[in-house]
Amino acid sequence: MAEADRLQKQIEFILEIDKLKEVYRRSFVTGSKKAENDAEHSWHLALMSILLLEYARTKQGEPDLLRVLKMVLVHDLVEIDAGDTYCYDEEAAGDKRLREEKAAERLFNLLPPDQAAEFRSLWDEFEQRRTPEALYAAALDRLQPVLLNYHTQGRSWKMHGITAEQVLERNSLIKEGAPELWAYVREIIRKAVEKGYLSGGRDR
Amino acid sequence: MAEADRLQKQIEFILEIDKLKEVYRRSFVTGSKKAENDAEHSWHLALMSILLLEYARTKQGEPDLLRVLKMVLVHDLVEIDAGDTYCYDEEAAGDKRLREEKAAERLFNLLPPDQAAEFRSLWDEFEQRRTPEALYAAALDRLQPVLLNYHTQGRSWKMHGITAEQVLERNSLIKEGAPELWAYVREIIRKAVEKGYLSGGRDR
Repeated sequence: MAEADRLQKQIEFILEIDKLKEVYRRSFVTGSKKAENDAEHSWHLALMSILLLEYARTKQGEPDLLRVLKMVLVHDLVEIDAGDTYCYDEEAAGDKRLREEKAAERLFNLLPPDQAAEFRSLWDEFEQRRTPEALYAAALDRLQPVLLNYHTQGRSWKMHGITAEQVLERNSLIKEGAPELWAYVREIIRKAVEKGYLSGGRDR
Repeated sequence: MAEADRLQKQIEFILEIDKLKEVYRRSFVTGSKKAENDAEHSWHLALMSILLLEYARTKQGEPDLLRVLKMVLVHDLVEIDAGDTYCYDEEAAGDKRLREEKAAERLFNLLPPDQAAEFRSLWDEFEQRRTPEALYAAALDRLQPVLLNYHTQGRSWKMHGITAEQVLERNSLIKEGAPELWAYVREIIRKAVEKGYLSGGRDR
């Protein structure tokens, strides 16, 4: 590939992913009623990866921070085509994989082949949740919306009638990536039930 | 510091920086009329750092990507208190440093001391623009709004009556971090003048 072509492809990709700034999530930014978008969420996760690294402890070993950062920066790009699938929406979960596969195929192939392969492999690794990097990234990807939800008085949980049970089930994989953060999240869920942010109050 | 205290401080910082999602810039997202915010911009820079690394060539050597990523993720946090200072606003530039220093003092010190020191040092390094990491990060920080501006038909340039001369002067430091990207930006500026996105048309 001629050098100018290569740069042109990279720039086109950089412009294409600008769209992630308008893929909205169910979480709300804590200071306002603004829905969070995927670009903001990815940035937040990246900073959390740096700050919470000391809690990353998986059976597979410790994660490499550079690879974690690349992974969280890339992990939601497929939602440019596939949209954000609400994590408690079981119906939408059905064809999520297919929609996201197609998106990955189109999007990453805008890049020069070596970079397309790197991004695809980062995304696959994130989705498979087997490496220390992927387990830690997944833990943060769960923790972040719990924090936003709790600090907006459970706004999004209430809007969608989510129960403590659902939140516990959805987030329990945090313990595989960062056991201390899972203890912290359990405590948040307990307090959220106490305050009425979350329904369902089995004593945990 | 007890371990629970440490985590509490880290979480408080993570919640505090949620505010970066509402610090708006003068650039517009390309797909709409939405003003870009600092969190989106920082995420975009982080991905650009990964994708354009092969063009990073400074007199001081090649940058370490992990440090570049940390730097771009952190570089705008001070704007939570200090606000975004428009790069072509000479009056606001006057007390920018002072406002940002105060912000750094407050914000980073929400963190445990070791992390406060790391973030402060990353920000100082970015501001001083002397290391390969800082020069490359600064180049991307200039390139990104030029791309958004050009691909929104010069919307923000036109709104503020910016000239090609100003854009060239503001962005020429790109050549210290990534010479090929500077050649690319010069070409964009030339085309922007041709298309009437930018005023001022000395032949360059």
